[in-house]
Amino acid sequence: MAGCSNLPSLFNSIQMKIEQYQIDQHNDSLFSRHNNQYIFLQEQLGEQGIHAKDIVKQLEAFQVAIPSWALGTGGTRFGRFSGVGEPRSLEEKIEDVGLLHALNRSSGSISLHIPWDIPGETQPIIDLATSLDLKFDAVNSNTFQDQKDQELSYKYGSLSHVDAQVRKQAVEHNIEVIKHGVNLGSKALSIWLSDGSCFPGQSNFVKAFQNTLESLQEIYAALPDDWKVYVEYKAYEPNFYSTVIQDWGSSLLFCQKLGPKADVLVDLGHHLPNANIEQIVATLMMEGRLAGFHFNDSKYGDDDLTVGAIRPYQLFLIFVELIEGMKRANRASDTYAWMIDASHNVKDPLEDLLQSVEAILIAQAQALLVDRKKLEQARNENDVVLAQQILQNAFRTDVRPLVREAMRLSGGSLDPIALYRHLGVRNELLNERGKLTVATGL
Amino acid sequence: MAGCSNLPSLFNSIQMKIEQYQIDQHNDSLFSRHNNQYIFLQEQLGEQGIHAKDIVKQLEAFQVAIPSWALGTGGTRFGRFSGVGEPRSLEEKIEDVGLLHALNRSSGSISLHIPWDIPGETQPIIDLATSLDLKFDAVNSNTFQDQKDQELSYKYGSLSHVDAQVRKQAVEHNIEVIKHGVNLGSKALSIWLSDGSCFPGQSNFVKAFQNTLESLQEIYAALPDDWKVYVEYKAYEPNFYSTVIQDWGSSLLFCQKLGPKADVLVDLGHHLPNANIEQIVATLMMEGRLAGFHFNDSKYGDDDLTVGAIRPYQLFLIFVELIEGMKRANRASDTYAWMIDASHNVKDPLEDLLQSVEAILIAQAQALLVDRKKLEQARNENDVVLAQQILQNAFRTDVRPLVREAMRLSGGSLDPIALYRHLGVRNELLNERGKLTVATGL
Amino acid sequence: MAGCSNLPSLFNSIQMKIEQYQIDQHNDSLFSRHNNQYIFLQEQLGEQGIHAKDIVKQLEAFQVAIPSWALGTGGTRFGRFSGVGEPRSLEEKIEDVGLLHALNRSSGSISLHIPWDIPGETQPIIDLATSLDLKFDAVNSNTFQDQKDQELSYKYGSLSHVDAQVRKQAVEHNIEVIKHGVNLGSKALSIWLSDGSCFPGQSNFVKAFQNTLESLQEIYAALPDDWKVYVEYKAYEPNFYSTVIQDWGSSLLFCQKLGPKADVLVDLGHHLPNANIEQIVATLMMEGRLAGFHFNDSKYGDDDLTVGAIRPYQLFLIFVELIEGMKRANRASDTYAWMIDASHNVKDPLEDLLQSVEAILIAQAQALLVDRKKLEQARNENDVVLAQQILQNAFRTDVRPLVREAMRLSGGSLDPIALYRHLGVRNELLNERGKLTVATGL
Amino acid sequence: MAGCSNLPSLFNSIQMKIEQYQIDQHNDSLFSRHNNQYIFLQEQLGEQGIHAKDIVKQLEAFQVAIPSWALGTGGTRFGRFSGVGEPRSLEEKIEDVGLLHALNRSSGSISLHIPWDIPGETQPIIDLATSLDLKFDAVNSNTFQDQKDQELSYKYGSLSHVDAQVRKQAVEHNIEVIKHGVNLGSKALSIWLSDGSCFPGQSNFVKAFQNTLESLQEIYAALPDDWKVYVEYKAYEPNFYSTVIQDWGSSLLFCQKLGPKADVLVDLGHHLPNANIEQIVATLMMEGRLAGFHFNDSKYGDDDLTVGAIRPYQLFLIFVELIEGMKRANRASDTYAWMIDASHNVKDPLEDLLQSVEAILIAQAQALLVDRKKLEQARNENDVVLAQQILQNAFRTDVRPLVREAMRLSGGSLDPIALYRHLGVRNELLNERGKLTVATGL
Repeated sequence: MAGCSNLPSLFNSIQMKIEQYQIDQHNDSLFSRHNNQYIFLQEQLGEQGIHAKDIVKQLEAFQVAIPSWALGTGGTRFGRFSGVGEPRSLEEKIEDVGLLHALNRSSGSISLHIPWDIPGETQPIIDLATSLDLKFDAVNSNTFQDQKDQELSYKYGSLSHVDAQVRKQAVEHNIEVIKHGVNLGSKALSIWLSDGSCFPGQSNFVKAFQNTLESLQEIYAALPDDWKVYVEYKAYEPNFYSTVIQDWGSSLLFCQKLGPKADVLVDLGHHLPNANIEQIVATLMMEGRLAGFHFNDSKYGDDDLTVGAIRPYQLFLIFVELIEGMKRANRASDTYAWMIDASHNVKDPLEDLLQSVEAILIAQAQALLVDRKKLEQARNENDVVLAQQILQNAFRTDVRPLVREAMRLSGGSLDPIALYRHLGVRNELLNERGKLTVATGL
Repeated sequence: MAGCSNLPSLFNSIQMKIEQYQIDQHNDSLFSRHNNQYIFLQEQLGEQGIHAKDIVKQLEAFQVAIPSWALGTGGTRFGRFSGVGEPRSLEEKIEDVGLLHALNRSSGSISLHIPWDIPGETQPIIDLATSLDLKFDAVNSNTFQDQKDQELSYKYGSLSHVDAQVRKQAVEHNIEVIKHGVNLGSKALSIWLSDGSCFPGQSNFVKAFQNTLESLQEIYAALPDDWKVYVEYKAYEPNFYSTVIQDWGSSLLFCQKLGPKADVLVDLGHHLPNANIEQIVATLMMEGRLAGFHFNDSKYGDDDLTVGAIRPYQLFLIFVELIEGMKRANRASDTYAWMIDASHNVKDPLEDLLQSVEAILIAQAQALLVDRKKLEQARNENDVVLAQQILQNAFRTDVRPLVREAMRLSGGSLDPIALYRHLGVRNELLNERGKLTVATGL
Repeated sequence: MAGCSNLPSLFNSIQMKIEQYQIDQHNDSLFSRHNNQYIFLQEQLGEQGIHAKDIVKQLEAFQVAIPSWALGTGGTRFGRFSGVGEPRSLEEKIEDVGLLHALNRSSGSISLHIPWDIPGETQPIIDLATSLDLKFDAVNSNTFQDQKDQELSYKYGSLSHVDAQVRKQAVEHNIEVIKHGVNLGSKALSIWLSDGSCFPGQSNFVKAFQNTLESLQEIYAALPDDWKVYVEYKAYEPNFYSTVIQDWGSSLLFCQKLGPKADVLVDLGHHLPNANIEQIVATLMMEGRLAGFHFNDSKYGDDDLTVGAIRPYQLFLIFVELIEGMKRANRASDTYAWMIDASHNVKDPLEDLLQSVEAILIAQAQALLVDRKKLEQARNENDVVLAQQILQNAFRTDVRPLVREAMRLSGGSLDPIALYRHLGVRNELLNERGKLTVATGL
Repeated sequence: MAGCSNLPSLFNSIQMKIEQYQIDQHNDSLFSRHNNQYIFLQEQLGEQGIHAKDIVKQLEAFQVAIPSWALGTGGTRFGRFSGVGEPRSLEEKIEDVGLLHALNRSSGSISLHIPWDIPGETQPIIDLATSLDLKFDAVNSNTFQDQKDQELSYKYGSLSHVDAQVRKQAVEHNIEVIKHGVNLGSKALSIWLSDGSCFPGQSNFVKAFQNTLESLQEIYAALPDDWKVYVEYKAYEPNFYSTVIQDWGSSLLFCQKLGPKADVLVDLGHHLPNANIEQIVATLMMEGRLAGFHFNDSKYGDDDLTVGAIRPYQLFLIFVELIEGMKRANRASDTYAWMIDASHNVKDPLEDLLQSVEAILIAQAQALLVDRKKLEQARNENDVVLAQQILQNAFRTDVRPLVREAMRLSGGSLDPIALYRHLGVRNELLNERGKLTVATGL
C-alpha cells in the first residue's frame, strides 16, 4: 500500500535523536544573556501590571500539531527540488516531529494524512510516538489525488461527484481514516476537499452542495461519540473556477446541517485577497463553531509559506481574537486544533517548522500582552487612537524572552535553530536516510 | 427636512414627458430592420427547439427598480462633476423614472432612500407614480450619513454603535422609513450599513455583531406582516478595516437569527476580488434566502459602473443561476428585489440607466437560451467541453432582437437611447430644471 | 536525453490523420445552415458599412501557435489526472498540432520547449511538420526545472543565480536552445524565468536584476541577426514572494538595456488581480516593444484555463488594442508571436485547444467590427455612452458565421469539435498510443 | 480665490503653540523609565556590534513632510464627519504642522496643495513657517477637481484631455503652482493625475499617453534649474476603468522621455492587490529614478490609513530597500521626498499624524538594525532561513527607545501623543477656531 512503512528495520537501528543533555549544555551557554533579557522584560511588563510568568505558563501549554506532509520538500507544478535526508516512512516522520518537539517542546503532536501515512502495525507506532512525547492530532483524509490501484478516479470530484459510486468510495475512505485515527488515539477527522470545477457550466452548484452534504452525513454518522469532524473551506485552487466549500459561510452551513460534532476549520491561506480573517475567526468563535486554525503565510495566494514570514501583524490580530474567543467561551487552548500547514520549497523543512512555531508563539505572547480592559474602555469611548496604540504597544514589545523562557522551562532549547545546526541534525539524517529520499506526501 | 419636496408648483407646470405616439413613430422607422432580425433569430432558435416568443414574454415580465439616488451625477471624494437638468425633488426623480419606463417598459418601480426622498404629502406622490405606471420598490434607510439637525452622530456606527442611544436613534429611523414605505405601498425595507471600523482594535467584532443583531431585531419586530427586511453585506468601504456585515455568510447568520422575514441582498460590487458571486447566489437560493440582487459592474472595487460594462459574462453566469434558482423554488421573478445600484460620473444618468437595463435584459435573454436539459446531461457525464459550449452558445447568440421585441410589445422603444437623444430629453430637462441642479443623494 | 524522441518506428506506422475529404463531407452536411447565417450576417454588416469578406480574410490569415506542452494533461501540485492517448514523443506532438491545424486551419505552428522536445534528427522533424503545413514558432528554454543528470540545480534560480556557474549553465542552455531553433527554422527565443524568491530577505533585488541582465546580454549576443528574444514577465508563482521580472515595466527595462532584438511578451495570466492588461498592450505597442501575446484565461491566478472561458469581454478589449496597435505600426499579424499558453486538467487537450482557438478568432472578429472612426469621434466628444455602445455593438454581434467561413475557406471544418468527436480522434489516438501515456512537459 | 487666506488677524492673535518648557517638563517625568530602556537596548545592540547612537543620529536627521490636506478630517463619498478645531486657513495649517514638529521634531516641512493653499502674501507665510522651524516641501498641483469660476472642466481629464484648451489650462495651472513654490522656497512640483477613464472605449490609451506627455513636457520646460518634477502613478480610483499613469512602469516611461529632472513618486496605496512594492522601490532606486515615497497604509484599496496600522512588516521591508538604495547611491535621506499621504476619518488628524510619524521612525530604526553584511552572506549561500532570521531579528527588536531618544535629543517629546492630550491641544484649537470649521482640501 502506498504510504505503508516498509523500513522498520532501518528505523530501529540508527535513529537520530536529540538528547536532553545536549539541549541543557547549549542552554547553559545562552542562559546568562537570556536571563538578563527576561528579567528586564519581566520588570517592564510588571510596570504595566502584567505578570510575565503567567504568560510564560500559557505559552508552555500551547501545542501546535505538525502535519506529516510538512516534513519533506513540497512539490510545485514544475517538479520538486528535494532536500536531503527526508523521512522515508511514517516512523521517520514521527522521528522528525520528535526532533522538533525535543527542541521547542511546543510541537507535541502529529497529524497524519491517509493514505500517505497508513501505519503498518499500530502499537509500535504508538510506542514510538509516546517515547517522543507525541500525540496523534486530527487525521486527514485525501480524496484530491488518485492512489495507485484506486478503483474510481477523483478527477471530477469525490464527496460531491455526480456519480454515486465515486461518492461512496470517498465516503468509505473517510470512514477508513476514522478507523486508523481511532487506533492511534486521534479524536477528529479533518476533511479538506479539492472538489469544485474548472469552468463555468461544469458543475451544478446546488447538486454539488447536496451531494457533498449527503456524503458528509454518512461520514458524520460513522464518527465515534467523542470525535469531531472539521470541515475546511478554500476559496480556490490553481486552475479552478469554483470550489464546493468556497468560504466560511459555506463551511458553517454544512456544519449547521451536520450537527454539533462538525466545526469549521480555518486555514490562513484559503481566502480571497484582503479578507479580514480575524473577523471570520471571531464570528465562528461567537457561534461556537471554530474547530481550529491552520497556520502558514502567503503573499499572493495559498502560498503555504513559513508562519509570520509575510504578515506578522495579521497573525497577531488573529491571535488577539483567538485568545478573546477562548476566554469568552471558557475553553482551554488544547480543545482547539492548531496546526502548521505549510510547504517547504527552499528551506530545510525542520528549520522552517521551527521558525513557524516560534512565530506562532511570538504572536500569541504579543496577544496575551494586550490590556483587554483598557482596550474595551477605549472602544466604548471610540478612542480609536488609543485602541490602536494598545494593540501596537503589545505587538511592538520584543516578547522573544518570554517565548525562550517558556521553551526553557519545559525542557526545550533557548535557540532551537542554532542548536539544530550546531548538532548537524540534517547531516545526521542525510547519513541515516540518504540523499535521494522523497517524503510521501505533497 | 432635508429631502422634502419644496417645488410642487414647478413640477405641475412643465413636466417633461415622452408620449406614446413619439415612441410609436420612432419604432415605425426602425421596425422593418428589427423585424427582419427578429424573424431570423426566431428561426435560428426554433431549430434549437427554443421558442423566441416564450423568451420575449419572460423579458416583458421582468422589471428592475431604479433607485432614486441614481438619477443624479454621483459624488466622488474629490467632489462632484454635476450634469445638467438633474432632478431637484422627489417628484422630479419619479418623473425621471417615468421617462425611463416609458422608453424601455422594464423600469416600472422606484426605490426611495430616506431621508433623501421623504414625501411631503403621500397621495400626490402615489398619484404621480401611478400616472407613470410606477410602483414603489423597497425603501432604503440611511444611517451612513449625518443629517442636518440630527441629534447623535453616526461617525462611529449606527445599528452597531457602542452607545445604546445612537443605536436607538438608528432603529427609530428605520422604523420611520418603514412607515413611509407603508404609506407608499412598499413591501420591504432594505438595510445597508456602513458600520465597521477603520483600524485594527477599534471595534470588538462580537459586540458589534450582537449590537447590530439586537437593533435589527427591534426593526424586525416593527415590520408589517407582509413585509420583508433585506440585509445587505459589503466586504469593505474605502478607508475601512472591517465592516460589521462583511459577507453573505454574515448576512445569512443575521437572517437566520432574525426569522423568515429577513433575506440576504446581494450587490455585485460588494465582494472581495475574484469572488465567485454566481455560486453565492445559487447557495442563497438553495437556502431560500435570496432577497434579490443589486446590479452594477466594476473593475477594481465597488465601482458602481454601468451594468455589463466590464464583465458581461459574469453577469450572464449570475442570471444562469437566478433563472435556475427561481425555477427550482417555483417563484416568479417579481417576488425578488431587482435593482440597479450604480453611480454615474461621466455619463448622463438616464442614458446610463438605459444601458444598464438593456444589459440586464440581454444577460437574462442569454441565460434563458441555455439548454438546461443538455447541460445537466453534460454535467452528469463530466463532459466539461460540452457544458462550456452550451453556456457559450447561449452567450454568443446575439439576443438583442429578443430584447427589442419585448420592449416593443410592451409599448417601449426599439432603441431607447436613440429616441432619448432624438427627442432631446436632457435638453428639455435642462430648460425645465436649470443647469446648476444637484440631485439629493450620494 | 529527457525529451529525445525514441519512438520513430511507431510514428511511421500508425499515424492518425484527418483527411480533407472527411472535413469536406462534414462541412457539406453543415453548409446550408452555415451559409444561411453567413449571408444574413453579411447583409447586416453591410448595412453598417462593414465588408464581411474583408474580416473573413483577416481571420484566415491569423495563426496562433500551439505549445508542445499543451498537448497533454497538465500537472497540479497534487498530481496529474492523465487523459488517454497523449503524445509520447515530439513527433506525436507535431502530429497532434497537425490534427488541430487540419480542423481549424488557424494553428499552423508549434512552439517547442527544450529540453522536453529536443529533436533527435532534425530533417525528419521538419519534413513531418511541413507535411502537416506547420511551422516552428519561438523556441522556449526551461531553467525552472532540474533535468536528470544536470550538473547544477536551479532550485535557487538560473539566470539570476548568485553563483556565476549556475548562471553560466543557464546561459549555455539558452544558447543551445537557439541552436535547436535555428535548425528548425524558428526565429525567436522565448524566455520565461521562474527566478525569484520565496521569502523576504532571500534575494537582493538589485543584484538579481543585474545578474539576470548580464545573463540575458550573453544570450542576446548569441542571437542570429534575424532573431528576436522575447522577455516574459510574471507577477508571482505559488509559494513565491518575488519574481525577478515581475511586471511589464521590469520586462521593458531589460529590453531597453538589451537592444532592439528584445521585446516584451505578455501572458494574460501573469498579472496581479484586476490589472488593466489591454492598456499594457497598448503602451507596449506604442513603444514598439510588444513581442506578442500568450492567450489563456483565469478566474483567480495564473489558472491557464481555456481562452475566453472566464472573461471574454476582456479578451475582446485586448484584441481591440492589438488590432489598433498593428494598424498604427503598420505591421502584419504574423510579425507578432501569438500563442496559446493553457493547461488542461479536466478536458481533452485537443478539444480544449480547439475551443481556445475559436475564442481567439471570435474576439478578433468582434474587434475587427469596431467602427474606429466613429469611436474616435465619440472619444473626441467625450460621448462615453456612445463609445461604450460602439464596443458593445461589436461584442454583442454573433460573429461565429465569420469565423466558420474563414475556417471553411481555408480548408478547415465548419465545426471542428463536432468533427473531432464524430471521427473519434481521441479513441484512435488511444488505440495508437495506449492508455497510460504521459506527455513530456508540465 | 478658493484657498486664499482670509484670516490673518485671527492668526496673529491667538495662536496655539507648544512651548519648549512644556515638552521638557513632560520629558522629565518620563526620562528615568526611558533612559533605563534605552541603556538596556544600547547594551543589547552593542553585543550585536550595533551602535545605538549612530542609529539615533540617523533617526534625528530624518524628516517627513506633512501635506496641508492631512490636517483636517477626510471626506468620503457619503460626506464628511468633521472633527473640531480644524485649521481654517493656510496659516492655521502651518501652525498645525508646527505643533507636530514641536512634539516629534521629525515633521519639519509642509507640502502645499494649490489651489487649496494659495498664500495671500508670501513673506508672512515664510516667516511663520521659519518661526516654527518648517520648510516648504514639494508643491502639489490639483487638476482632479473643478474650482469655482474655473473656465474649463476637468470632468474628462486634464493633462490628457482630448481638448487642447483644457490641457493648456491644466499646464498653466501647474506652471502657476511652480511659481508659488519658487516664492516659498520649494524645490519640486509633485503631479498626481486622476486622468483616466471610467469605461472601456472611453479613452484612446495611446493618445491619452501622448497628450499627457506633451503637457508634461511643457511643464518640465518651465521648471527652474534646481527643481524636480515628481510623476506619481496610481493603479485605480473608485469608479475607474483605467488611469493614464497606472503603474511605475508608466511613470518611468514618462520620466525617461521627460529628462533627468523627472522622477517617479511611489505611494504605498496606489498599487494593485498584493504588489511587491519593496521590489518596485529597489528597481527605481537602481535606475536612479525614485523621487520619494508617500507613506500610508491600507487593507483593501487606497485606504490612506495611518502608516503602519495594517502591514508594519511591509513598511519595514520598504525601508530595508530605501536604506540600501540610499547607501548604494550615496545619497542622503533629505535628497528624497518623504511625505505622509493619509486621510483621517475617525481620528484626530494631529494624533493620527503623530502615530504615522512614529511608525515611520520605528520601521526605519528596525531597517537600520539589519546586519547587511551577514544578510548578503546568507544570500550568497542561499541560506534562506538565516536571511529571514536576520530581517526578523531586526523587526522583532523593540526599537521604540531609539525613536524616543532621537526625539528627545532633538528637542521633541518622549511621548508626543500623551503630551498632546495632556496639554489639551485639540481643545485649545477648538476654542481658538470653533467647532464647525472644515479644512480646505479633500
